[in-house]
Amino acid sequence: MIKAGIIGVTGYTGIELYKLLRSHPAASIAWLTSENSAGQRLSDVFPCPWDDPLLALEDAPLADADVVFLCLPHAASMPAVAAARAAGARVVDLSADFRLHDPAVYQRWYGLAHTEPALLAQAVYGLPELHRSAIATADLVANPGCYPTSVILGLAPLARASWLHGQVIADSKSGVSGAGRKARLNNSFVEANENLSPYSIGYSHRHIAEMEQELLQAAGGTVQEAAGRSPSHPVANFRIIFSPHLLPVSRGILSTIYVTLPDGVDEKAARAVYAEAYAGEPFIHLLPPGQLATLHHTVHSNRCAIGLTFVPGSTTLIVTSAIDNLIKGASGQAVQNMNVMFGL
Amino acid sequence: MIKAGIIGVTGYTGIELYKLLRSHPAASIAWLTSENSAGQRLSDVFPCPWDDPLLALEDAPLADADVVFLCLPHAASMPAVAAARAAGARVVDLSADFRLHDPAVYQRWYGLAHTEPALLAQAVYGLPELHRSAIATADLVANPGCYPTSVILGLAPLARASWLHGQVIADSKSGVSGAGRKARLNNSFVEANENLSPYSIGYSHRHIAEMEQELLQAAGGTVQEAAGRSPSHPVANFRIIFSPHLLPVSRGILSTIYVTLPDGVDEKAARAVYAEAYAGEPFIHLLPPGQLATLHHTVHSNRCAIGLTFVPGSTTLIVTSAIDNLIKGASGQAVQNMNVMFGL
Amino acid sequence: MIKAGIIGVTGYTGIELYKLLRSHPAASIAWLTSENSAGQRLSDVFPCPWDDPLLALEDAPLADADVVFLCLPHAASMPAVAAARAAGARVVDLSADFRLHDPAVYQRWYGLAHTEPALLAQAVYGLPELHRSAIATADLVANPGCYPTSVILGLAPLARASWLHGQVIADSKSGVSGAGRKARLNNSFVEANENLSPYSIGYSHRHIAEMEQELLQAAGGTVQEAAGRSPSHPVANFRIIFSPHLLPVSRGILSTIYVTLPDGVDEKAARAVYAEAYAGEPFIHLLPPGQLATLHHTVHSNRCAIGLTFVPGSTTLIVTSAIDNLIKGASGQAVQNMNVMFGL
Amino acid sequence: MIKAGIIGVTGYTGIELYKLLRSHPAASIAWLTSENSAGQRLSDVFPCPWDDPLLALEDAPLADADVVFLCLPHAASMPAVAAARAAGARVVDLSADFRLHDPAVYQRWYGLAHTEPALLAQAVYGLPELHRSAIATADLVANPGCYPTSVILGLAPLARASWLHGQVIADSKSGVSGAGRKARLNNSFVEANENLSPYSIGYSHRHIAEMEQELLQAAGGTVQEAAGRSPSHPVANFRIIFSPHLLPVSRGILSTIYVTLPDGVDEKAARAVYAEAYAGEPFIHLLPPGQLATLHHTVHSNRCAIGLTFVPGSTTLIVTSAIDNLIKGASGQAVQNMNVMFGL
Repeated sequence: MIKAGIIGVTGYTGIELYKLLRSHPAASIAWLTSENSAGQRLSDVFPCPWDDPLLALEDAPLADADVVFLCLPHAASMPAVAAARAAGARVVDLSADFRLHDPAVYQRWYGLAHTEPALLAQAVYGLPELHRSAIATADLVANPGCYPTSVILGLAPLARASWLHGQVIADSKSGVSGAGRKARLNNSFVEANENLSPYSIGYSHRHIAEMEQELLQAAGGTVQEAAGRSPSHPVANFRIIFSPHLLPVSRGILSTIYVTLPDGVDEKAARAVYAEAYAGEPFIHLLPPGQLATLHHTVHSNRCAIGLTFVPGSTTLIVTSAIDNLIKGASGQAVQNMNVMFGL
Repeated sequence: MIKAGIIGVTGYTGIELYKLLRSHPAASIAWLTSENSAGQRLSDVFPCPWDDPLLALEDAPLADADVVFLCLPHAASMPAVAAARAAGARVVDLSADFRLHDPAVYQRWYGLAHTEPALLAQAVYGLPELHRSAIATADLVANPGCYPTSVILGLAPLARASWLHGQVIADSKSGVSGAGRKARLNNSFVEANENLSPYSIGYSHRHIAEMEQELLQAAGGTVQEAAGRSPSHPVANFRIIFSPHLLPVSRGILSTIYVTLPDGVDEKAARAVYAEAYAGEPFIHLLPPGQLATLHHTVHSNRCAIGLTFVPGSTTLIVTSAIDNLIKGASGQAVQNMNVMFGL
Repeated sequence: MIKAGIIGVTGYTGIELYKLLRSHPAASIAWLTSENSAGQRLSDVFPCPWDDPLLALEDAPLADADVVFLCLPHAASMPAVAAARAAGARVVDLSADFRLHDPAVYQRWYGLAHTEPALLAQAVYGLPELHRSAIATADLVANPGCYPTSVILGLAPLARASWLHGQVIADSKSGVSGAGRKARLNNSFVEANENLSPYSIGYSHRHIAEMEQELLQAAGGTVQEAAGRSPSHPVANFRIIFSPHLLPVSRGILSTIYVTLPDGVDEKAARAVYAEAYAGEPFIHLLPPGQLATLHHTVHSNRCAIGLTFVPGSTTLIVTSAIDNLIKGASGQAVQNMNVMFGL
Repeated sequence: MIKAGIIGVTGYTGIELYKLLRSHPAASIAWLTSENSAGQRLSDVFPCPWDDPLLALEDAPLADADVVFLCLPHAASMPAVAAARAAGARVVDLSADFRLHDPAVYQRWYGLAHTEPALLAQAVYGLPELHRSAIATADLVANPGCYPTSVILGLAPLARASWLHGQVIADSKSGVSGAGRKARLNNSFVEANENLSPYSIGYSHRHIAEMEQELLQAAGGTVQEAAGRSPSHPVANFRIIFSPHLLPVSRGILSTIYVTLPDGVDEKAARAVYAEAYAGEPFIHLLPPGQLATLHHTVHSNRCAIGLTFVPGSTTLIVTSAIDNLIKGASGQAVQNMNVMFGL
């Protein structure tokens, strides 16, 4: 049995991870921490029957865990990852702190210097469909963001084929749990219910950085960081326009993605690269022609559903890509990474 | 045109009141205050096109208003009502501060001494269906709470007939706007959505005090305050068991009320007292036999819908009573009171 | 591995059962039927990746299953149960057809004669917390209704102690999946959303029959059927007033139940009978004092959460009892029954 | 007082229109028809206190109305409009039957021949912000579709400036009332709740025809119909890619529209054409820089909220355009048209 510790269990990704590990046949939960609720029990914080104690991070027996999952906000995760690694545990970090390989890119998007560049250099981006073999041997896996999971999985086959060019528009809609478990007026029931709110549109959401990094890499390029917060990317011949929207559901992300295919790439060819890229992937659900991805294809599962629609008389492909933001977009993918790391 | 000032416009009852007064043919808005957003404009706080300035309370020209509406939390309302009255305005107070006639009852339920007992003695409980003539001449109207409006209107005909006795169970369900416009984890989308939560059940919710006062008065009795927080009411031969639930809707209250009628009171007699009590009332919608009140009967209107169901083979009457908590349960009723006060 | 067949898989309880059995470590799915979608695949009907074929009932190899689950409407289930039993399979029937032991009671509430009285005489009411040993040896288990599960589990300890008397009020609220997977205007999004609708109140909902049967039996009595549809129950000294409400959530039931305890029964004694009744029950979550049951305690789990609130200065106990109507209220309980039947 | 008749009052647009006309200071309701509920009263069909009789269409005294509103499905509206016009009433038709000027275009998108080409030739497209003077004198106004209202208002200033070219992507999300008031599994609560479903994407939704007609006309061009259902438009240098999504809210549409502006058109110039186009328009709410349109800007009002976001380092403009689909997208706009037609 793999012994797992969870740092920051009292957020939505934390409790989801707890539930997944609790029913995992080959893992057991070693300890839990909570920054805000240390000293309480899990059942004091969530409506559940589980009385596991919640420790302060400094009291957690890090060395008792084979694997440590971190569900902390960005910035807070860097020292905690370092501590967990120093204690000998393999780490899956669900924050943004180790996703961007270039510290300068991290600094540009997150507004602070990376304090653990040596660890960052070892971190593997934890999207098993793209990086399974590297994950298998990694000691530090950076679990992808929720929006990037839906967009990157929706576009990676095209990127690998070098078919992305020009503007790629990702119009994404996310359930409210994506904003985390905190009291904020924007996320209150009356404000979010019966509403739909775009936010951070126009090249300003931090998740763009992950999408660019991974899609450029899949296309064989790399992100070059120019001075200042310029959106220009000299080595890329495509650009992601990413528009997130707050959707009145608890969980789920749907990304509707608009791509102009190169001349000469027809529907058959496009479907073929998706089929090849995801052959044998247990959590990719490639939909048959005529079906579109919806949230109900994926919520409460670790699947990503992908539908392809070709606009007649044009070279436009519309990719619909859906996930459960708390599972494939966070905790389910974290467990999937653990399974790969431990050869399960 | 009646000139109206609104104190505390940036809560849910405040903005609802603003909209109602804005479209009122005989009223105009004189000024608005906001404790948290003074210096901003209304359109900075709500998604609306109205650029009215938001004043601090101390900067509001109280004397420029014929009527002042107060949408403040309890306790905060007492000095503000005093100031508005001192400036000569007639007042409709939407807080709980002037609803309970007996300062001792107020102190018991709200945990603090009433600082304006002289004003309290003049205040009229603003339920037009019960106190229209007193409201017409009042300078200070205490607008009822949302739950009490649904329960009192559902039971007043029975109270007047002296048919309430024993336990009366009011199982009430309210939309989340009833909790006010503030960031609280309990009211966040993910916590409230796809959920139903009872709270403050078992004789602990403050709104019980209003229900007891008004129903006892309708029955010809008064609330006697015993020492301590005892729930015993020597002069009443009935008792309200009130169970509020947080419902995953933005607005609306449904109270399902269980009454044991005295022997000999049959369906025909019971329907007759309702019909008589509410004859000519424009905002009471007495449903025909077989229909039950639902939220959709009332939301976005000032109506209270009341359905009566008699349990065969018993003397049990089930009253279903629905309102929009922000309109008949707050701001619509406040405007109705203004209309009565100004003879409209 | 237990081989399981599902008759009627394309309703909400059917697909839930399919998912539960799919991940069951000791069961496998032998075949599926669908009355409306025979000839299609499961993925044609639900947004899922599973391509299992859907058979017509007459084409199902009944004898290939060790256990057959039936998710059919009442009346349709009687002949199908008979066929499955004739083929040698043990049966868990999720319809109402085998829940009421007395064919006359069945006829009164369902308006038709029972066509399989011999099988009915063998059927066991499948509430493991009440009838575990009988279920273990049963060949035909009648899976309880969703509302009855929440109400019976909330009251059984009191019934066994013979503490139920007079009126017991069960104010229940159910998510829309309880109404089944069919196109009906009442259950359409716009009608149900932002609404709350009581229905079938005043001793008219069929689920009352199950509650009476089981609670009377727990109290040591039996239901006597008088002539006609009379609600009088001579041998019972208590009566259930049951008020269902349609709640704008997809799944979950909360019952708020009002009981007048006998004089002399205090909180300590009442808590003790619940603790004793449910000691060791894996799916009963008895909440500690001060906590109330909510939907979020139970949805997506097989648990029933029960909270007890005592009204000060009275003998009134308020029981809050929550379940997921599709799991503990249907398919999860069906699997729990299978586990008991097969000694897992 | 303008006497108004409503044909087809028992759909969502019908009842919304009824409520708007009921509170209109210069209009009164002459009669109502319902195809499915003739012989009943309005309060039998909707949870409301209004007992107006519902007539069969053939019994409606058409000539008693100054204006007739038709809320019928397409195809059914053609003969009814002809009858109302023959009776002398001015007509606002809320169906799609008179929106497309070219009968061949109508036939292509709706799959049937137009039976009233002479009336069609007189019909004016009822978007007051584009065609106010023609509406003022029209006897037959074709009220726009809900999606087209949001998209056309969001793009018309750019079309007039001849700045639309290449692909214009309109990613639209609509509340479920847009699908009408009928029992359909897709629109049932459990299917639509906690979901988001794209549908009819890839140049297949009929509303594209209205968008093309109006935007081409605003740009000075016209739709040329090629043989067959070809999506090519020789005279237009732009093309609408329209992707509707079913959103789990009762009402409201948000369109997120992606436009590539011509080189040399900067933010200042683009904002100027919007400001000029909509100066003095009471129901267009042009949002200040930094604000994005949300459903809450518009639901329960006749407004269209428009926000403009410019993607830095590019010529991409993202227009967010929100309306209430039942008001500005249907019945509110119909009343606005009536007001223009009757000089109010």
